Amino acid sequence: MKISIQGNLGSYSHIAANSIFGKDIELFERSEFTDVFEDLEQGRADYIVVPFENSTHGSVYQNYDNISKYDFTIIGEVYLRINFHLIVNPGTKLEDIATIYSHPVGLNQIREFLRNHKNIKDIEYDDTAGSAKMIRDEGKKDSAAAASRLAAELYGMEILEENIHENQKNFTRFFVLSKNGKQPKELKDRENNKTSIQFLLGDEPGSLYKSLRTFADRDIALTKIESRPIIHTDWEYRFYVDVMAGIQEDKMKNALFELKSYVKELKILGSYKKGDYIET
Amino acid sequence: MKISIQGNLGSYSHIAANSIFGKDIELFERSEFTDVFEDLEQGRADYIVVPFENSTHGSVYQNYDNISKYDFTIIGEVYLRINFHLIVNPGTKLEDIATIYSHPVGLNQIREFLRNHKNIKDIEYDDTAGSAKMIRDEGKKDSAAAASRLAAELYGMEILEENIHENQKNFTRFFVLSKNGKQPKELKDRENNKTSIQFLLGDEPGSLYKSLRTFADRDIALTKIESRPIIHTDWEYRFYVDVMAGIQEDKMKNALFELKSYVKELKILGSYKKGDYIET
Repeated sequence: MKISIQGNLGSYSHIAANSIFGKDIELFERSEFTDVFEDLEQGRADYIVVPFENSTHGSVYQNYDNISKYDFTIIGEVYLRINFHLIVNPGTKLEDIATIYSHPVGLNQIREFLRNHKNIKDIEYDDTAGSAKMIRDEGKKDSAAAASRLAAELYGMEILEENIHENQKNFTRFFVLSKNGKQPKELKDRENNKTSIQFLLGDEPGSLYKSLRTFADRDIALTKIESRPIIHTDWEYRFYVDVMAGIQEDKMKNALFELKSYVKELKILGSYKKGDYIET
Repeated sequence: MKISIQGNLGSYSHIAANSIFGKDIELFERSEFTDVFEDLEQGRADYIVVPFENSTHGSVYQNYDNISKYDFTIIGEVYLRINFHLIVNPGTKLEDIATIYSHPVGLNQIREFLRNHKNIKDIEYDDTAGSAKMIRDEGKKDSAAAASRLAAELYGMEILEENIHENQKNFTRFFVLSKNGKQPKELKDRENNKTSIQFLLGDEPGSLYKSLRTFADRDIALTKIESRPIIHTDWEYRFYVDVMAGIQEDKMKNALFELKSYVKELKILGSYKKGDYIET
């Protein structure tokens, strides 16, 4: 099974991919989301696993734009609690550490740890797991990475201190995307209970309110609403909405039927089972 | 009048500030939005003029987060059509130009021009107007900036070609922010017909739908809805909503009264007159 992700071996995207497909996968490590989407478009990858939202930083807008550009289907979802551990080469002690490397977002999550260890300076690196790999490859004895447990395992390194991040409620939501309705055995027998759609608003006033009413009237909970501007228009938005109902449910079919009278270019992005929460 | 903006003399923020306050202002040019907000907080600036949304790139999320952090009031709005012109030192001809400098977002707006002039390479600079200033200061005869008309004027440069950007519907929306209810004479006699609010959703199901219904029921048009995650929560969002009614109107007072029963931490960010569209 060929899976493409943005990031290195041991990255949070890798953990997300493992949680869905297990560890026996062929992983493509890309530095840009565009390359990940192209891997699926060109048929190099069977599936891609991509972050769409973080509970602290908000939506990954680039990927909302990407999913509108490509004709892919969301077939699965997973939530990762983003934990950062202090990862070193075996034998390195806390007092040896002069520098911590991580992605800027990772460093931002360990500000308190850095304040409590004023002798340790932080240096930005372009990937969390990649910073662990670099420290391993260069045999650094005075450096640590802030990265995932999987990164420590894969690179044969030690976790000197667990959970050095301050925000214990930092989650990232990943989607598994597929092309041409392809479905892996791992996800096939799941009962879909969640659906993601996108649409443009119709021209009549109150069409956003009416769109949301179609779900409220049927007790279908809305779990997310996102809007993105449409390029080359003045202030026209594409809306993305997630609701708690599978596409196979009658109430959902009825809601979508009514919704069509208030919106334009309605597209079902996918129906899937609500994702599990995974520790990292 | 002291006005703080993010950007240099001749930047789009400067044009926005001029369009509200005229040209006779003392301008603070800051490189970070945080410094601009602090200028108002600390009383160094009377008002600040800040972009909140671009019709192509979406919301400036950082400033939505900033407006929740500070206790400021939106007192005015202005829309700028973002035009890019080819700006050179006097005497430079098109065939002399080897390099165009601009902010990455600016360069992205002139891709077609660059494709049609393959002998010209582009180099990223940290500010659109700043790239014009640099070319002037260094007396470059083989370079151009992609920037605003005001930048050309202020730095005594020539516009060699107007409107070299491809997207003719690229608008940025700026807010004028004030502290402690301060109001300049330029905005005092305007009739407010637009209001921005923020709130958290209540716990009962369908509270977003019900919130929007309070406006729809009173024929108050919704012009924008935005959501931002609240840090240290798992998937709780703060909503930002703009509606077409002034805070002094009875229907708006009634809508807000009803809204309070569906939402938490309702805050009126400001009521103001819908902004004019300005060419740049």
